[in-house]
Amino acid sequence: MKLTILKENLKNGLNTVERIVSKSLTLPILNNVLLETIGNFLCLTTTNLEIGIKYWILAKIEKENKTTIPIKPFSNFVSLLPEETISLEIKDKVLNIIGKNYKAQIKCLDPEEFPIIPKFETQNFIEINSVIFCQGLSQVVDFSASSQIRPELSGVYFVFQKDRVYFAATDSFRLAEKTVYYEKSSVFIKGIEEGYSFILPQKTARELIGIFGEKEGKIKIYFSPNQVLFEYILPETAHPQIRLISRLIEGEYPNYQEIIPKKYDTQLILNKNDFLNQIKSASLFSGKTNEVKLKIDRKKQVLEVASQDQEFGEQKSQLFGKINGKETSVSFNFRFLIDGISNITTKDVIFELNGEEGPAVLKPAGDISYIYVVMPIKMS
Amino acid sequence: MKLTILKENLKNGLNTVERIVSKSLTLPILNNVLLETIGNFLCLTTTNLEIGIKYWILAKIEKENKTTIPIKPFSNFVSLLPEETISLEIKDKVLNIIGKNYKAQIKCLDPEEFPIIPKFETQNFIEINSVIFCQGLSQVVDFSASSQIRPELSGVYFVFQKDRVYFAATDSFRLAEKTVYYEKSSVFIKGIEEGYSFILPQKTARELIGIFGEKEGKIKIYFSPNQVLFEYILPETAHPQIRLISRLIEGEYPNYQEIIPKKYDTQLILNKNDFLNQIKSASLFSGKTNEVKLKIDRKKQVLEVASQDQEFGEQKSQLFGKINGKETSVSFNFRFLIDGISNITTKDVIFELNGEEGPAVLKPAGDISYIYVVMPIKMS
Repeated sequence: MKLTILKENLKNGLNTVERIVSKSLTLPILNNVLLETIGNFLCLTTTNLEIGIKYWILAKIEKENKTTIPIKPFSNFVSLLPEETISLEIKDKVLNIIGKNYKAQIKCLDPEEFPIIPKFETQNFIEINSVIFCQGLSQVVDFSASSQIRPELSGVYFVFQKDRVYFAATDSFRLAEKTVYYEKSSVFIKGIEEGYSFILPQKTARELIGIFGEKEGKIKIYFSPNQVLFEYILPETAHPQIRLISRLIEGEYPNYQEIIPKKYDTQLILNKNDFLNQIKSASLFSGKTNEVKLKIDRKKQVLEVASQDQEFGEQKSQLFGKINGKETSVSFNFRFLIDGISNITTKDVIFELNGEEGPAVLKPAGDISYIYVVMPIKMS
Repeated sequence: MKLTILKENLKNGLNTVERIVSKSLTLPILNNVLLETIGNFLCLTTTNLEIGIKYWILAKIEKENKTTIPIKPFSNFVSLLPEETISLEIKDKVLNIIGKNYKAQIKCLDPEEFPIIPKFETQNFIEINSVIFCQGLSQVVDFSASSQIRPELSGVYFVFQKDRVYFAATDSFRLAEKTVYYEKSSVFIKGIEEGYSFILPQKTARELIGIFGEKEGKIKIYFSPNQVLFEYILPETAHPQIRLISRLIEGEYPNYQEIIPKKYDTQLILNKNDFLNQIKSASLFSGKTNEVKLKIDRKKQVLEVASQDQEFGEQKSQLFGKINGKETSVSFNFRFLIDGISNITTKDVIFELNGEEGPAVLKPAGDISYIYVVMPIKMS
């Protein structure tokens, strides 16, 4: 292998693919990046056996070959180099990194030891705006279950329909669902009319947001029964720049639609930031139970939030809003309320209650694409 | 106690005094803030028995009194309140915090249990620009010894002379000294001609930087044999806003001036950022020894830095500069070089060497107020 490449491009590629590399003691090759010349590109590959990432960088290739070296020190070294062209060359199982005033040599491992990232044989894909996709995903990703007791809840559930995809996540205490529409012209999934779904591991969803969240452009999502491929095409070259393959979680996702209430007893429309601050203030007095008590006064059009800590003290606050339906009192774990309110991006939040024990709903006012369902704490 | 106060002012005061409060299980009162009305002010006090802070806030006092409550939740609560006036009132050993739409009650402890911050009876002080004082202190504070094997090295050594103060710190591997000049008109120390010195705990020095580093104005430093007082006068009110009292470290500071070389064998003048990047790059190949090897070529006017890690690989880089004196080779722990270079704020750095084993010096080009001394690694 012999090539020259721009420092900035190599740095960006390494920063992207090293995201999924965590120090592996059992299989040290997983700490490595595979460097491979393909056509006019240097291709970087990393994997943690759950996720694999490939990243293509335009380079001036003089001799083709491939090799593998530890990614972290290589990436750190490249970051510190001046903004110039870098020469990479393999000689005697050593990668030579050469610039105007420096020369480094890194020992290579046999590239045959590097795990194979499976090829993806499917023409079924949908195309979606990458920023909108990642923004939507970020509104649900935190609510997957962190335990593995019910593995199917440990991921984000994707449901594709003809013109849209639903993301859903729940840890059985609360549930969030987001709807994102894709470009209608670009749906190439056989049998999409019947719907198509899979459960994506939470870690993969988080990496998608980190990698594609600030990349203007489109992502193609390719499906197969056990795996999914996310592909980002660089607009300038019309060549794939990034491919991320992930395993899927096996199992059947619960019919979460059943949990979303279709009606409400009481509806509040509140200023989002004021409501968030009110719950945060109340949380400081909630003690070990995390309980905040809500009392809805329809006549005064006021929400009263109270909390009490036997040792420390107590507080009460009022927030005015638009209130319809029955008066009621209901308690929540403040953390679940804060999580839901925080994910609402509109000025006002709609808060729908179903008595002391029924599920409550938080949603953005004037935006039907997001819903957050939370169960109250049963009154003792 | 009954008073009204601006939320923003109370928040700023609490944020300042809570800095030194760490969760104490043995003496829970140390988690508290003492609230006290003094004239037209609410005075906040905290202490960790090493440091005590008082913070005065203008308030509308209706009834005088004092009390003490846990600071962290109180401070968090105040931060979340709207930007308005807050009423504070003690009733039945409970502090009532009242605003337009909220009311909180926090249980008070007996203020007599709060540790007494000793009064400071001295007229001896110097006055210094707070920002310049903190910037200077921050250039040495990290080099105090973190262990307590030699307690006198665990602090920053202050030496006051007629027109200036020296800050010195060393952990016996390296040493830094900074000189800061004060306003000549405002020195009121008896016997200052003979010099006056003390050793300030590293933690206090760090808190000073955090508290006063961004406050435009002047600090007065008052001395006594075992304690020191730092006072910040609010320009608008001409009243002290903050007083910080700290214990001093007992013991005799070593005669560190002896360690600073008075001459050099080799002198380099290098671009600071390039030199820093060069050492950082080399560090990635330095392995467990942290060793980077420097070779000075006077004819080519070049500094060559080499490093080697048996498992990972090796590197060499060149940096051109102005070089005088003898050619030499010398090894350093890269961390000590990086720490020294990082604290130099000028474009160029002067690097003076004294052979393979003599102490080396780093200093800013064109600024005689800072010096950093570091010992080489002995060649094996």
